[in-house]
Amino acid sequence: MKNYIVEFIGTFFLLLVIGLCVIEPGGAGMLAPLAIGTILMVMVYAGGHISGGHYNPAVTLGVWLRGKCKAKDVPFYMLAQVLGASVASLLAIKIKGGALILAASPDTVNALLAEFIFTFALVYVVLNVATAKKTAGNSYYGLAIGFTLMAAAYAIGSVSGCAINPAVAIGLTIMGLSSLGNLWIFIVANLAGGALAAAVFKITNGQE
Amino acid sequence: MKNYIVEFIGTFFLLLVIGLCVIEPGGAGMLAPLAIGTILMVMVYAGGHISGGHYNPAVTLGVWLRGKCKAKDVPFYMLAQVLGASVASLLAIKIKGGALILAASPDTVNALLAEFIFTFALVYVVLNVATAKKTAGNSYYGLAIGFTLMAAAYAIGSVSGCAINPAVAIGLTIMGLSSLGNLWIFIVANLAGGALAAAVFKITNGQE
Amino acid sequence: MKNYIVEFIGTFFLLLVIGLCVIEPGGAGMLAPLAIGTILMVMVYAGGHISGGHYNPAVTLGVWLRGKCKAKDVPFYMLAQVLGASVASLLAIKIKGGALILAASPDTVNALLAEFIFTFALVYVVLNVATAKKTAGNSYYGLAIGFTLMAAAYAIGSVSGCAINPAVAIGLTIMGLSSLGNLWIFIVANLAGGALAAAVFKITNGQE
Amino acid sequence: MKNYIVEFIGTFFLLLVIGLCVIEPGGAGMLAPLAIGTILMVMVYAGGHISGGHYNPAVTLGVWLRGKCKAKDVPFYMLAQVLGASVASLLAIKIKGGALILAASPDTVNALLAEFIFTFALVYVVLNVATAKKTAGNSYYGLAIGFTLMAAAYAIGSVSGCAINPAVAIGLTIMGLSSLGNLWIFIVANLAGGALAAAVFKITNGQE
Repeated sequence: MKNYIVEFIGTFFLLLVIGLCVIEPGGAGMLAPLAIGTILMVMVYAGGHISGGHYNPAVTLGVWLRGKCKAKDVPFYMLAQVLGASVASLLAIKIKGGALILAASPDTVNALLAEFIFTFALVYVVLNVATAKKTAGNSYYGLAIGFTLMAAAYAIGSVSGCAINPAVAIGLTIMGLSSLGNLWIFIVANLAGGALAAAVFKITNGQE
Repeated sequence: MKNYIVEFIGTFFLLLVIGLCVIEPGGAGMLAPLAIGTILMVMVYAGGHISGGHYNPAVTLGVWLRGKCKAKDVPFYMLAQVLGASVASLLAIKIKGGALILAASPDTVNALLAEFIFTFALVYVVLNVATAKKTAGNSYYGLAIGFTLMAAAYAIGSVSGCAINPAVAIGLTIMGLSSLGNLWIFIVANLAGGALAAAVFKITNGQE
Repeated sequence: MKNYIVEFIGTFFLLLVIGLCVIEPGGAGMLAPLAIGTILMVMVYAGGHISGGHYNPAVTLGVWLRGKCKAKDVPFYMLAQVLGASVASLLAIKIKGGALILAASPDTVNALLAEFIFTFALVYVVLNVATAKKTAGNSYYGLAIGFTLMAAAYAIGSVSGCAINPAVAIGLTIMGLSSLGNLWIFIVANLAGGALAAAVFKITNGQE
Repeated sequence: MKNYIVEFIGTFFLLLVIGLCVIEPGGAGMLAPLAIGTILMVMVYAGGHISGGHYNPAVTLGVWLRGKCKAKDVPFYMLAQVLGASVASLLAIKIKGGALILAASPDTVNALLAEFIFTFALVYVVLNVATAKKTAGNSYYGLAIGFTLMAAAYAIGSVSGCAINPAVAIGLTIMGLSSLGNLWIFIVANLAGGALAAAVFKITNGQE
């Protein structure tokens, strides 16, 4: 239960910062990716020792495939993440009351590619900095994970919106920043990217 | 006494950077939150081994409720923080002499919500990275704490001014960036957020 | 083989972020250097324990001269880096389809100087934070390496384009951001800078 | 001799990044402080294990007063720092050839105050994160030191130019960014701030 509370809190703050920073007026403009990557970083540092600090169903999938998350935890982790994302998205809309929000209309092929490739990057980083034997005990795992999201947001924010996280995609849809018809793009591409990262991790880290 | 000097110095620099970066002209514009989160980070790293590096009555409350600050220290910590904030605020106005400063006029309910939720985030991060047994000895605690303030400032700077710290709220009031009539919003919401964080910390970290 | 896969992945993401952030519209504007330095940082943290996380022929040259890379690995590392850079550059152009790209036309002497001096800085930092005995086991090596690139990009982005990496120079040429006629500037200056860094490392670190 | 080479290199890159980022056109605009704080951070990480990574006569003074720098090293450290700063400043002007540079004309009292207070902050951070027994072996010292300069530059860049370092002040004077008649402001205020930091360090850290 402790794990699920921590996953709820972390994903809640991730979406709350996304909503408050991306929706204008009163947002963070070109610095939104810095704020968003940073909130992921601090939540990973705050909750990593309890739940692992996933806050992302694609990460949970990758960590499970890599053998560091119990199968019975997987659905509850994902549920807690989606719940946290949903509550935060409703709260962000409430606080931003009245803002004009337009859903992005990305090119489908580019969005699929961008979401797949950068979710791979995120989960590849997570597995290497937070689950590999050779990097155990390091102090940089949160910085590496959170700032991967930041770099991705600068790179593909204008291509796909840069969810690289199905819970974030659901939150963006609730807030109206992405359309319901495009939700499948994120879910498919993000989970596929996470699964590929687990496979590449196993190839490049060998037997542990 | 050493502790109180360190708390004074840290809160002094936090408010001095806030005043010099937020008051225009000559401020830091959209990069003010980066500078503000950073000065908190460096002061936590510089003073953490002496006083714990609170620089915030809501943090002192949360750390005390979590059992890592002596009751007799609490009022003196808070006094040192408020004194440091006040002296720095007067100095910032002096240096910025002549600048036209207008107090923000936030929506009360949104400001209460924003201050409560993000003070919770800050103290939740502090307790987990700086007082939990499982994260002891890490090198990221200052980065996590300072950059939580940075992310919060981008998210709710336009909603409430983002004090998430009663000493900062007093400093903002002295500088004229916030009105005296709104001071209760911060004091109530920040202390409540800090107290909730201590409760959630105990639930999610179990008996230590 | 694991090493080469990791070098391919890291250099791939470095160039993909460069292409997506530098080519406008939809790029990161003045924040491109932050995103670019960050993707290098996270890839160093993700792959350092496997391949050393070079992602740069000038780094591979410097690490080899300093005695921490096997001679037989050098050509394969460089090949993997150039391949990763090339594939990512083609992908970036595909995603940015239709953008008007103009090759920079730097002053040759200034570009040679800037590329030589800042490649020296990058490799000097790499050797000291990632191969020196006295800094072994630190958690800051990725931050130091990635953010050296960030600082360099702000300093000499307008002077030479700031490749400080022959694989990046090849990628910039493929994307049309740099002209084929200027490619020699980068290759000569970057390899010379890396070699000098190895010499200075040996002088300043003594016999290990 | 190794120490002096490292001090020369670090101060050289600090001034080179300052010159290239601050002098427009082709500079880093509002992101110059980020680049400048970052180059200090990476040079501290790269050279700290050799020379201590001062790159600043005010730091050398403070570290000597605190008892962690030999008296006979002090003049040579300062000489290496001033030499590195001077050579880099001449190089920056050469690369920026033709740029129109106007010296700042700060209010003298505010500039003295700002330089004194923020040099105190920098040296207070240096002594606590890099020379205190209780923080020995940490991985954050370079981040804390470099980013103190970054926060200071956002706070007082428009007040005094934010040298907080006599070698930087000499470099700014050589580049024409500050006038010769104002050089005393920096030298007096910076050395006084560094000396005060050493005294406060001793009071707050007790006998070690």
